[in-house]
Amino acid sequence: AKLWGGRFQKPVTDIVERFTESVSYDKQLYKHDILGSIAHATMLAKQGLISESDRDSIIEGLREIEKRIENGEFHWRADREDVHMNIEAALTDLIGEPAKKLHTARSRNDQTVTDMRLWCRDAIDKIVASMRQLQVSLLRLALNNQDVIVPGYTHLQRAQPVLLQHLLLAYVEEIERDAGRMIDCRARMNFSSLGACALAGTGLPIDRFMTSDALGFTAPMRNSIDAVSGRDHLLELLSANAITAVHLSRLGEEWVLWASEEFGFITPSDSVSTGSSIMPQKKNPDPMELVRGKSGRVIGGLVTLLTVCKGLPHAYNRDLQEDKEPVFDSVRTILGMLEVSAEFALNITFNRERIQKSLPAGFLDATTLADYLVNKGVPFRTSHEIAGKSVALCTSKNCQLLDLSLDELRSINPVFDNDVYEFLGVENSIKKFVSYGSTGSACVAEQLDYWIKKLEIK
Amino acid sequence: AKLWGGRFQKPVTDIVERFTESVSYDKQLYKHDILGSIAHATMLAKQGLISESDRDSIIEGLREIEKRIENGEFHWRADREDVHMNIEAALTDLIGEPAKKLHTARSRNDQTVTDMRLWCRDAIDKIVASMRQLQVSLLRLALNNQDVIVPGYTHLQRAQPVLLQHLLLAYVEEIERDAGRMIDCRARMNFSSLGACALAGTGLPIDRFMTSDALGFTAPMRNSIDAVSGRDHLLELLSANAITAVHLSRLGEEWVLWASEEFGFITPSDSVSTGSSIMPQKKNPDPMELVRGKSGRVIGGLVTLLTVCKGLPHAYNRDLQEDKEPVFDSVRTILGMLEVSAEFALNITFNRERIQKSLPAGFLDATTLADYLVNKGVPFRTSHEIAGKSVALCTSKNCQLLDLSLDELRSINPVFDNDVYEFLGVENSIKKFVSYGSTGSACVAEQLDYWIKKLEIK
Amino acid sequence: AKLWGGRFQKPVTDIVERFTESVSYDKQLYKHDILGSIAHATMLAKQGLISESDRDSIIEGLREIEKRIENGEFHWRADREDVHMNIEAALTDLIGEPAKKLHTARSRNDQTVTDMRLWCRDAIDKIVASMRQLQVSLLRLALNNQDVIVPGYTHLQRAQPVLLQHLLLAYVEEIERDAGRMIDCRARMNFSSLGACALAGTGLPIDRFMTSDALGFTAPMRNSIDAVSGRDHLLELLSANAITAVHLSRLGEEWVLWASEEFGFITPSDSVSTGSSIMPQKKNPDPMELVRGKSGRVIGGLVTLLTVCKGLPHAYNRDLQEDKEPVFDSVRTILGMLEVSAEFALNITFNRERIQKSLPAGFLDATTLADYLVNKGVPFRTSHEIAGKSVALCTSKNCQLLDLSLDELRSINPVFDNDVYEFLGVENSIKKFVSYGSTGSACVAEQLDYWIKKLEIK
Amino acid sequence: AKLWGGRFQKPVTDIVERFTESVSYDKQLYKHDILGSIAHATMLAKQGLISESDRDSIIEGLREIEKRIENGEFHWRADREDVHMNIEAALTDLIGEPAKKLHTARSRNDQTVTDMRLWCRDAIDKIVASMRQLQVSLLRLALNNQDVIVPGYTHLQRAQPVLLQHLLLAYVEEIERDAGRMIDCRARMNFSSLGACALAGTGLPIDRFMTSDALGFTAPMRNSIDAVSGRDHLLELLSANAITAVHLSRLGEEWVLWASEEFGFITPSDSVSTGSSIMPQKKNPDPMELVRGKSGRVIGGLVTLLTVCKGLPHAYNRDLQEDKEPVFDSVRTILGMLEVSAEFALNITFNRERIQKSLPAGFLDATTLADYLVNKGVPFRTSHEIAGKSVALCTSKNCQLLDLSLDELRSINPVFDNDVYEFLGVENSIKKFVSYGSTGSACVAEQLDYWIKKLEIK
Repeated sequence: AKLWGGRFQKPVTDIVERFTESVSYDKQLYKHDILGSIAHATMLAKQGLISESDRDSIIEGLREIEKRIENGEFHWRADREDVHMNIEAALTDLIGEPAKKLHTARSRNDQTVTDMRLWCRDAIDKIVASMRQLQVSLLRLALNNQDVIVPGYTHLQRAQPVLLQHLLLAYVEEIERDAGRMIDCRARMNFSSLGACALAGTGLPIDRFMTSDALGFTAPMRNSIDAVSGRDHLLELLSANAITAVHLSRLGEEWVLWASEEFGFITPSDSVSTGSSIMPQKKNPDPMELVRGKSGRVIGGLVTLLTVCKGLPHAYNRDLQEDKEPVFDSVRTILGMLEVSAEFALNITFNRERIQKSLPAGFLDATTLADYLVNKGVPFRTSHEIAGKSVALCTSKNCQLLDLSLDELRSINPVFDNDVYEFLGVENSIKKFVSYGSTGSACVAEQLDYWIKKLEIK
Repeated sequence: AKLWGGRFQKPVTDIVERFTESVSYDKQLYKHDILGSIAHATMLAKQGLISESDRDSIIEGLREIEKRIENGEFHWRADREDVHMNIEAALTDLIGEPAKKLHTARSRNDQTVTDMRLWCRDAIDKIVASMRQLQVSLLRLALNNQDVIVPGYTHLQRAQPVLLQHLLLAYVEEIERDAGRMIDCRARMNFSSLGACALAGTGLPIDRFMTSDALGFTAPMRNSIDAVSGRDHLLELLSANAITAVHLSRLGEEWVLWASEEFGFITPSDSVSTGSSIMPQKKNPDPMELVRGKSGRVIGGLVTLLTVCKGLPHAYNRDLQEDKEPVFDSVRTILGMLEVSAEFALNITFNRERIQKSLPAGFLDATTLADYLVNKGVPFRTSHEIAGKSVALCTSKNCQLLDLSLDELRSINPVFDNDVYEFLGVENSIKKFVSYGSTGSACVAEQLDYWIKKLEIK
Repeated sequence: AKLWGGRFQKPVTDIVERFTESVSYDKQLYKHDILGSIAHATMLAKQGLISESDRDSIIEGLREIEKRIENGEFHWRADREDVHMNIEAALTDLIGEPAKKLHTARSRNDQTVTDMRLWCRDAIDKIVASMRQLQVSLLRLALNNQDVIVPGYTHLQRAQPVLLQHLLLAYVEEIERDAGRMIDCRARMNFSSLGACALAGTGLPIDRFMTSDALGFTAPMRNSIDAVSGRDHLLELLSANAITAVHLSRLGEEWVLWASEEFGFITPSDSVSTGSSIMPQKKNPDPMELVRGKSGRVIGGLVTLLTVCKGLPHAYNRDLQEDKEPVFDSVRTILGMLEVSAEFALNITFNRERIQKSLPAGFLDATTLADYLVNKGVPFRTSHEIAGKSVALCTSKNCQLLDLSLDELRSINPVFDNDVYEFLGVENSIKKFVSYGSTGSACVAEQLDYWIKKLEIK
Repeated sequence: AKLWGGRFQKPVTDIVERFTESVSYDKQLYKHDILGSIAHATMLAKQGLISESDRDSIIEGLREIEKRIENGEFHWRADREDVHMNIEAALTDLIGEPAKKLHTARSRNDQTVTDMRLWCRDAIDKIVASMRQLQVSLLRLALNNQDVIVPGYTHLQRAQPVLLQHLLLAYVEEIERDAGRMIDCRARMNFSSLGACALAGTGLPIDRFMTSDALGFTAPMRNSIDAVSGRDHLLELLSANAITAVHLSRLGEEWVLWASEEFGFITPSDSVSTGSSIMPQKKNPDPMELVRGKSGRVIGGLVTLLTVCKGLPHAYNRDLQEDKEPVFDSVRTILGMLEVSAEFALNITFNRERIQKSLPAGFLDATTLADYLVNKGVPFRTSHEIAGKSVALCTSKNCQLLDLSLDELRSINPVFDNDVYEFLGVENSIKKFVSYGSTGSACVAEQLDYWIKKLEIK
């Protein structure tokens, strides 16, 4: 019989039991549930609501249950609905009467929120650690590939030359903000709902500050109705994951492009590639395709919980049971995406020669040419037009800008002089960049130093 | 070693293997995968691509594997990546050489699409059957609750009286369109991708019409690239599920409202209710709250796959491996939602007396009063205003429309006559409805007959 | 004063008026609103509910209003809330008393649904026409590019050679299913809600079949509550748009890739390209980037309305006012995406020579080599391995498969014979394809014929 | 001709121009665009890149253009694409040559990001102000409704009594976290992209710190590629809006429920209610229905931009033009939702008498009864069961807990004593709550004080 069955005369039907149970997935909260129960029991004893010996029995029993769960010896039962009731009922089986006092001044409504907050706090710590690892991998990749110039793209058209290191640091910057969102989310989430009970608090003399401290929370939540109703802490985590997933999908796209025959910038090692069941020559960058693709489910998970919460009246509604699976899946997925991206970064080789050979295509130095003209006093718009015409001339002659003779350049505009050739060609072009945050060598070196220190790379 | 490992010198790392494997969830395709393989092997033999004895070995081996899977004796291996490779490799372990011929003129790219089409076809059949069952439950509920008048709402404000049967039939109509979408989706999906191979078809003389027929498809798909690239058949199914889920969420909301103390229209039986871990008096309509809430994940699943597919070049990309879990979850969820809604419908009692008592509130007969005035030749806008003023008078006197004396009514407008009292009061009001599809008794009876015949209720 | 203001004593505040008005966007329903009102007035007169002269005044007045709207001479007023009330109030201003009879046996609840169904019906017709136009453009592009072989990709890695026509027809197939979904949606949507009134129908003797016929609907909806509550017809349209948008995003991605320096398969003409404000050499395929990007808002629009509808009780709720903007935006966007894709298709040149030169890379013939071995009686898995090793040999020698000598091939497996060279090289490889739907020339020619007839290309 | 047209020989087609233009919506960035241009020009002069007189002409010209825009005298042209090009071209028309120097060391890529960051910063400030206003309105509502007890709900079933003030403060808490997210988002967003140029920075000697300071940014962004590629600052804002929208949708749902005939807890004033076009008696809480419904578009807007950004390679892609409309719409919507919620809060009356009368229903004191038993030393699980049986007895007798005689109670369990009646009944029950954050009077008073101080209410 259910522990809440006092007023009920019939058990729920099988269909309902199967549809409403959550233990099949919320059992992964067991560690945090037990942690919360130990803190709660300790407080109940301190407040004189249960005896010290009851407390000891409870704690010992819970530790035994934890051990059994970890040894795979615990029998999870769907008819006991959820992780909370499974553990409480098992505790009753194990230690008898004292177990019946554990749920004093507590409801599953505050308990489940407490468990999830504890679980998410741990999850965020793992995510941030994985972000740091990816940043370190990217930085190492940068340090191993000094002086490689790659085409910078806008609209996937060749735009200007950039140092490979500069691009890799752009990813590092993105992840830094992603980590910042995680840290903000953690701080806002780290409050205790325990003791809010069903929704109204309790008339029993509990000490919510004590359990809050014991569980490492900043403070108890100020309003018991809010404590059991709110799920914005989960929505914020799912949002932060979704934004991170979008960043990683961009990295995935880029590396998939670079591994293509057509780009040919990188060669992933066999250890991060997979083959085809039918095409013998194939070597595919599957991990990064999946990183790109798995962004879908992280976004989907956010939409799931936003939709679940939309339009619910206060306080707790059973709909909110649906808060767990999207969070579990989102966290597991984002951790995998981060980890495999770091792994991939450590297993690619840049094809320097091939990249080098490809640089002349695409007029990557055209903007530098326009800057040259600005230096000569030509207004930028006019410079842009002159450079544009120079490109058009190259296109008709099928040559590069540095192949144009001074006469040809002067036929477009007389302002050109011999020093123009110091601005043409990718190597010359990249030397010219000087602005803060630009792809100039000194600027990039400064950024590298910043990140080496920040990430404590040795 | 992987079956595609010919050109590879290093195995994938553990992290990559764990991240890229799909067997942990696509193993549930085993039945359809084996079905497809049997059809394929039969065709290969017919076309002389393999011998009859090879075919027989293959088919026998596949049946043995199917049996083992169903008996829980099959060892699924993550290093064998997916359901396809697990079964093919196990077949090789079992029957040796002939197994190596099964993948002739086939790729996992066309195979996985075939499996999913077969799986979804079955899923749709189950969904439509569950929809019929819900329609039948609603209809039975209607048949058991003749002559019950309930308030009809707009803006959750009492609007006009309606027959309960009329409202229940509105749900039946919604589900009918939902079923229509499923059936259209099935028809559009029921084409065979088998034989499209990796993306380009094959040079081996296969017969795609033969496998298409054997598997119950309408025809082979016309274009091999399309066959392995497209996922719109899954997106359409997920969309149809999402729309159905929205309908069920509305039913869920409504029944949750009706089960509240404040509405008090229905009493769910104990067998579809659950209690509280802390509040002894609680009896909650959890199944319908979860029906409402689970709409979130069905919508999230659709968003997941739309996002996955967005911006992918042709043909197959590994991102598409992410097509399975949202489909599996969406189908499982929608089946549960339909099933539990039907179960709930069969386990509620309408509190006729309480409903009856509540009907006087809310001026449900005000529009009938306006219609009365229209019958008297008053333009509708003026009728609306007169009726509005009558309501305002009632509000100030705290009475109902039928409590107003003829003098009072005439003080608002002299057009009122004694026959107005035949239009006032909920019972009178509902008798007046005559338009096709309206809540008039005859109209509703006609609709009931229509559905009794269509759903073959006895 | 509001037309419904009989029982109200205070006007709404400015903030509320601004927040709740819809006329700023639903005014674009004016044509369908007037169409519906004319049908309604005609029916009211036929049924004797208004006089013939009232009917004539109403119709004449509505036509005058329509003219004024189209001439930009109509003053839309936010205090009149929506398109319906603006037109009705303007009609009253124009023709006086008869206008007050127009809303007899009608509510905005059924009226707005009728308007939207009419509007969407027209929208679907336009969308399907634009789809046909895109298919025709793609087919013309195919007809203008006979015999071009391009690399077929999976995982964005070169897979097997395909005819360009084959790939272009893959897009045509996708759009064909997209059109099918539109047509199914139209058929399911094409029922009349008019006469459902607020939610319960009416006591006045209207003829819903007459208005349904007059407006070209299949039949009146069977249930008045369903008629005003349901929005699944809009959700279905938004879903169909979203799936189409995903297809177009894939086309966009592909053409953006092909226009890159690295692929270099196509050159878009200047007339469909844009430049950079800073980089003089840039020529960007912006229209297709936007086609890819605008898939986001079409998906977002679907999510919007799914979320709006989630959890709403019956019948009409004001939330449903939010059904219009996502539909208007989605339709406008998808029409633009289709139109510009067709325009782009007509303005690209395939760089045959560059494509041709690139074909040797990527071992596109490796699977044909495996098929060769199957023909020789080698089991496919073994063939795959042998071909894989041949590729590995080429990689180490930096050559193509057809550069391997017979001795080298035989060193891998003695089964090779001189006829192997008829299977190597992209041109040979593509000649071998024979399966239905494959990229073999005859197969593709057959498909071209099918589409030429179906799309009535001359 | 386009300002970037140097290398182009044909203008874009009308279809492409219409599809790619953004000025129709990004013109609302004009103020921030001009602000940025003035800062940029000032810096260019300081660095000697333009003359002081050029700078003065530019600034004067820009101010003139701003004035014209605000006076509605500016002619926005679609052929000039976007707000940036419209203003630059108009400046050229106005002041000639100096205008051609404004775009020195700047690209639209960094410019548009700068504009949006400035715009969003202002938007966030407005949103936070509106949040404060809503909090203040809720607090005032609380202060005006001392001592009102309402039923607290879980599962929309009556759970325990709560002070109305307690529930209103729960909303205040939610909005407080919403505001916190806005503030974090603002801090993370407030960095300058100006000077990142196209993607690589520039070779011209600009001072990015100077423009950053002038525009009130914390610092220039560290990496130019990141500066033009990233959109996570917008995604974070859209996420924060979406979470806020979900909170407001819950408030909307609750107030719609409370305004229903069945709950009857509140009466919205006429000034925030609307009527029906057909039903004369209707008075609907439309603003809060729309608040609930508009959550859909805010969520949809987030999905839009997440989808747009998914899978884009670095750096800028034209897809990113689609970042503006969802942000503009989301901000406008959330501001409206906040504003109208505050307005509604100030225009509702609590129907104290009706609420009071309804309190006996639902056994709101059952948990207090269980607490009573805990105080008597009964383990909670047993207390729960005893209280559950007491409720069952009441149900069978159709009475309340306080109607049970001591004998009846003792027939369930002998532990009951006369003091039990001090715990029964809603008024007694609520007096018992003592835990921090609970609904006990003292606890709520403490929270009220906290908020009065924090929000500086007088």
